[in-house]
Amino acid sequence: MPSGTPASPLFHVVLHQPEIPNNTGNIGRTCVATGCSLHLVHPLGFDTSEKACRRAGLDYWPRLEVHHHESFEHFTRGRKDARLWYFTTKARRSVFDAPFARGDYLIFGQETAGLPDSVLQRAGDRAIGFPMLPGERSLNLATVVCSAIYEGVRQLIADGSVQVREDGRLALLNIP
Amino acid sequence: MPSGTPASPLFHVVLHQPEIPNNTGNIGRTCVATGCSLHLVHPLGFDTSEKACRRAGLDYWPRLEVHHHESFEHFTRGRKDARLWYFTTKARRSVFDAPFARGDYLIFGQETAGLPDSVLQRAGDRAIGFPMLPGERSLNLATVVCSAIYEGVRQLIADGSVQVREDGRLALLNIP
Repeated sequence: MPSGTPASPLFHVVLHQPEIPNNTGNIGRTCVATGCSLHLVHPLGFDTSEKACRRAGLDYWPRLEVHHHESFEHFTRGRKDARLWYFTTKARRSVFDAPFARGDYLIFGQETAGLPDSVLQRAGDRAIGFPMLPGERSLNLATVVCSAIYEGVRQLIADGSVQVREDGRLALLNIP
Repeated sequence: MPSGTPASPLFHVVLHQPEIPNNTGNIGRTCVATGCSLHLVHPLGFDTSEKACRRAGLDYWPRLEVHHHESFEHFTRGRKDARLWYFTTKARRSVFDAPFARGDYLIFGQETAGLPDSVLQRAGDRAIGFPMLPGERSLNLATVVCSAIYEGVRQLIADGSVQVREDGRLALLNIP
């Protein structure tokens, strides 16, 4: 395990049936840089075999903690106490009003379709989004994931559970 | 001008000699969704002609307020009173400690090399970055720009200069 990588992920990023490999690669890069894990809910629109990742130049992929799930149903099994946040452009609640805690799950839908109603109906007041100007449809998936992770990091820094070192790097305490 | 687009940009995003058209396209999409303008400091590693943008599927590009600058020197002329923030992975100061104001300039370097020393030497305490784990080199440019814009949006919401409507959309007052 590389130096600085926390034993327990800062957040769990969950991608529901992602379609575009470059986005997932980009998101993997953000996860590695911030100590988050990545959950991929199948089916995927691409192949995450080592060869495919090497071809895309994802040299950080082997350092990523990645979990595969057959379906959203499978993902939620055994996670009854987990705090799940559902990102959707349909949300009225802003991500800035969501109190994140370490170990929370940040769930994102497909690039084109977003999260399906069958998943969103579980969200309740945990459906959140980044406020856009009226009439704008969406942002790129990878940029939204990075913005969400860093809003979470900001909150954890503010409440003292994560620190920024003098050299500007994140100091994460390893919690069991 | 499309409904909801502010008369004055929320922030000015400045890309110094960007190399990858997909990143700039992605950043343009974020700018349109958040009411920011985009400044491109030449030379660019690609072509932003209408045809090239259409080919990349950037249907939002015509709605983007984009400014071209021959050099960083040209960009800074006539902007002596502007508040410029310089994003760099070398910064010790966290973006979360930077007090953003509407109309600030957020400056980002090349995908591979970042901002050159000739630009960074102007930064002083305005050099900021997103804290990463020790040993991690960088994040994708487009994801960092989106995260920076939304940290700014969050601050403007917090100080009351921007509002989130009941439907979750941004309400920007048009200031002259």
